Order: sequence, then structure tokens, then C-alpha cells
Amino acid sequence: METNGRPLLSYPFPPALHPLAEPINRATIDWTHRVGIMPTEPAAQRRHEEYGWFGGRIYPTASEEQLDLASCFLAWLFLADDQLDETLLGRETTQVAHLHTRFDSILGGAHARPDDVPLVHALEDILVRLAKLASAPLLERFCRDVSAYFEANRWECENRRRHNVPCVAEYVAMRPFTGAVIPCFDLIYLTNQVDLPERLHAHPLVQATQLAANRVICYSNDILSLGKEIRHGDVNNLVILIQHEQRCSLNDALHRAAALHDAELATYLSLERSLTAFEEPVASHLARLTAGLRSWMRANGDWSERAARYKDD
Amino acid sequence: METNGRPLLSYPFPPALHPLAEPINRATIDWTHRVGIMPTEPAAQRRHEEYGWFGGRIYPTASEEQLDLASCFLAWLFLADDQLDETLLGRETTQVAHLHTRFDSILGGAHARPDDVPLVHALEDILVRLAKLASAPLLERFCRDVSAYFEANRWECENRRRHNVPCVAEYVAMRPFTGAVIPCFDLIYLTNQVDLPERLHAHPLVQATQLAANRVICYSNDILSLGKEIRHGDVNNLVILIQHEQRCSLNDALHRAAALHDAELATYLSLERSLTAFEEPVASHLARLTAGLRSWMRANGDWSERAARYKDD
Repeated sequence: METNGRPLLSYPFPPALHPLAEPINRATIDWTHRVGIMPTEPAAQRRHEEYGWFGGRIYPTASEEQLDLASCFLAWLFLADDQLDETLLGRETTQVAHLHTRFDSILGGAHARPDDVPLVHALEDILVRLAKLASAPLLERFCRDVSAYFEANRWECENRRRHNVPCVAEYVAMRPFTGAVIPCFDLIYLTNQVDLPERLHAHPLVQATQLAANRVICYSNDILSLGKEIRHGDVNNLVILIQHEQRCSLNDALHRAAALHDAELATYLSLERSLTAFEEPVASHLARLTAGLRSWMRANGDWSERAARYKDD
Repeated sequence: METNGRPLLSYPFPPALHPLAEPINRATIDWTHRVGIMPTEPAAQRRHEEYGWFGGRIYPTASEEQLDLASCFLAWLFLADDQLDETLLGRETTQVAHLHTRFDSILGGAHARPDDVPLVHALEDILVRLAKLASAPLLERFCRDVSAYFEANRWECENRRRHNVPCVAEYVAMRPFTGAVIPCFDLIYLTNQVDLPERLHAHPLVQATQLAANRVICYSNDILSLGKEIRHGDVNNLVILIQHEQRCSLNDALHRAAALHDAELATYLSLERSLTAFEEPVASHLARLTAGLRSWMRANGDWSERAARYKDD
């Protein structure tokens, strides 16, 4: 199926919404103003005023405190991404590297300094709150995964700066890390009470299931944000890279990307079934994990379709 | 191209052979007798007398001591695999679990006990020798990766015991771990002087490159050992699972598996090129790593084609 020539991406799971999404949305907006990361222009602000609603769709069973934290992290990611991705900064590797060094320092346990920009202080605020809610291993994993996201961001930034067009294989390898989906999946372990020993978290089937869900989300985003990337002259998009490498029309590339999205969704569903073979109590923890992955995929699809982010600029 | 109806797998890299392959092969055979893991029947012995030649193709630039160790590890893997895979033991989960517990204990630093079977003592001998040649982080990674191989073995064993036919997505997720290719790749870091900080070893592009090479090797093995698996009634083979899931002829499944093999090889070659973008001295270390991956793929293809292992039984 298509909508205006764009393939329609659909998910065989129902949508969900946290009952506290509205107050959390308001609290998240307040937080972005309080920590000073919300832009000052009203038009820009309007693009950043629904992360509580997004969080409410992604984490429909979270506690109020967990959802508040998760929504603030989402807001932080989008606002940081806006600074890095859509402004001149995204092409200035040195400035990006400096900011990332500060972020990494906070992730390593240091405190923000008075001369740090608000994004650095805001990240510290998130980690302080997460430390109160999450186990030490989960906090550690979250910090490691946020740091890997920064590293993948630098790879994208280098591509832009050097006008380098990565091959599709390279992009497919990097894409699961450039979307910050992995630390967001870490938060599912918190919101859905998924308590797996490290050995099981690292199990090939658990990792492959999360990777398939991650790719579903990223490819959906690439398809839905294609217009924006074309306008910005940004090559970091699966559709654009398929068109470039396979020398086909943009429309053909769009449908090939949608086919990859659908193949990842089919892989996800197969792997999800395979996880039911684990014995209890592991199987129940895995069922709560996959419920979270389903919510994430569905929320991302629904939210992206309507997000002002992709319409306004 | 085909050979006797089987798709011909080919690699765009030349073969190589270590100049000391012959004496190392003799030393490896002596070692398997000395540590008591070589079977006693002459026919069975003949199937296990060429691992030094195999090691000499895989690690053509190793030092004598490194190649000796790597060839003994290959012999250990094949001889352990024979016990686990091809005898009754492979369907007896409890016995497999006990043996793996003993292996894991050795990998964790314990000593073999007098009542341990020779395979346990032989594994300790390998680790003692590796500890003298490898850095502490490399030794630790090798032990972790061998342990993950045992865990994947148990998954295969459970499939056999429960007559469970995994879906292709599940098999594809597990296959990189069931072939012991990952610890064998760890040895490339030793033999080819690849010295990367953990952050770079874990880099998505480095991991994806190794994963593609791993899959090339595993899918080649599945294609070449298909006859053996069919005779043994073993479903742990990509071709058999494609035939089962896609309800096609065995010949069609064989060609689809060969297409997956070729796609992974193309992915590998794309990713290998992308690694050249790293700056020095990292780029040189990565070039030595990919030289090792190429040798592995080529050696595996050439050796499997002729190995008595697939012809005799």
C-alpha cells in the first residue's frame, strides 16, 4: 500500500498510550525550559513539545517517575540531535568532538562544569535520576550505549564533512547505533521490569531480536524523513544510499528500503517466537522485553507519521 | 557455476600456506596423541590428521609457536565437535552440559582434575600456552568467545534432542556462534599482530566485517557438509532449514543458501573497503585483520572441499 507515492509501513501490533501522557508531556516541556535546552523561537519550540506523548506511546506501562525520565531523555536526544544534525555544527567535527567529550565525561561519572552548555548539564540531570531508578549494571549499560551513539554520530558527521557517501553495507552496519535506539531499548528493561543476567541479555537470540526491532525503527525513520534529508543535502539515509549504489530511481529506492523494513519486521516476528522457548522465569522477562519492543516500533511508526518535525522544515 | 549439482563457492583472494605447515601438522598429530584426544581407530584417526595443514592455510604469517598453538586448538575443536556432534552424546543434553561446565571452569582459570576427560586437560594445555603468547585482554576475550561457542552448541543439542526445527531467522542469529569461528578470529589478532583498543575492536564496522566473514565461512560449511547432515538426520544446516521453511526443493534451497553466502561475501568486501577510511595506525592494524579474515575464508573453502571429514562418513 502507498500514501502519496510513499510505501505505507504497518505493524501487526495495536497502539498503546500511557494514561499519564498528558501531564508528563507538560512536565517534560517544563524540564526542557528549566534546564535551558529548549530553543527560544516559538516556531522551533512547537517542534519540541510532544515528547511526553511520544514517551507515553513507547513506554505505556512505565511508572510515572520512569516515564517522566524516559520522556526527558527523548527530549534531550531530539534537542541534541537538532543541534548536531541540522545546524552548521553538524559539519564542524571539532565542535562536535568537544561536545561529545563533555558528554562522555558526564557518562563516565564526572560533574558538569559551570562553563558547560545546558545540554551537558541536562544529561547529568538525566543520569542522576536514572541512577536512583535503575540497577548499577543497567545504568552502566545505558551510559555505554549512549556513548556508542555519540561515536556513531561522529561517523555521520565525518561523512557530511568529507562529502563521503558510505556504501549500503557500511550504513546498515552503523545505522543501529546512529539512531539512539539502543539506549532507549535499555530503558525498556527499567519500565517493563526486564531483569536478565548479563549472559542472557548478551544471548545471540536476544541481541538479534533487539537488532531487528532497532532496524525496523531506523528504516521507518529513513523512509519517513527522506524529504528532510534531501532538502538538507544529507546522504545519511538508507533510501538515498540505495539509490546511489544501485543506480535506480528514488521511487525504486524507496520501495527497496520499504522491502528491507518489512524483511526486518518479519525477522523480528520470527525471533520473537523463538524467544518463547526459553524456560521460566526467563521467558516472562523476555515477553515483557518484546512487549516493549513492539510498543517502540508501533509508537515510532505512528508518531513519525504525524510529527511536526518532518512536516515543518 | 556448479560442481556435481552443488553451487561452486569461490573467493577473490589467492590461497596461502605457511612454510612450516608440514612439521606443524606432525606436531599437532603428536599433541593429540599425547593429550589423549585422538581416537584409537585408524579410520577415525585418518580424519583428524591434517589440522596443521589447515592451520597453515588459515594463519600463513604466524610464528612457529603461534601456528603450533592455533593448529592444536583447531584439532581440539574438531575432536570435541566429533564427540558432541556425531555421537550419541550430541543428543544427551545432561552429558553435554556436564562437559561444558568443566570446559567453562577451565576457561574461568581453574585447573583440570584427575577425573576430567582428556578434552578438559587438553583445553587447559591450550590456555596455558595462549596465556604466554597473548595479551591479557585477548586471552580474556578468547575464553569468553569459546564459552559462547559452548552455549550455542547446547542450543543445537537442544534442537536435536527436542526434534525442534528452528526458523531461518533464529538459525541465522545463532550460526555465527555455533561454528567456533569467533575464537578462531581472535587468534588472528595474535598471529597477524592486530593490536586494537577494545573500543575499536567493538566498533560496529569492525564487528560487522568479522560477522560477514564468519557467515561466509559458516554458510560455506553448511553447503559443503549438507550430505553429512542429511545422513545424520541433523536439521542444524542452513540449506535444510531453508528447504523446510520455504517449502522448496533441496536443490532450490542449496542455491538460495549459496546466494546468501555470496551476498555475505559481497557485504564483507564492501565493509573491508570501508575500514580503509580509519586513520593510521589503526588502518594498518585493520588491514592485517582483514588479511587474516581473507586467509580464513579462502582456507576454509579450499580445505572443506577436500577434507576427508565430509567424504568418509
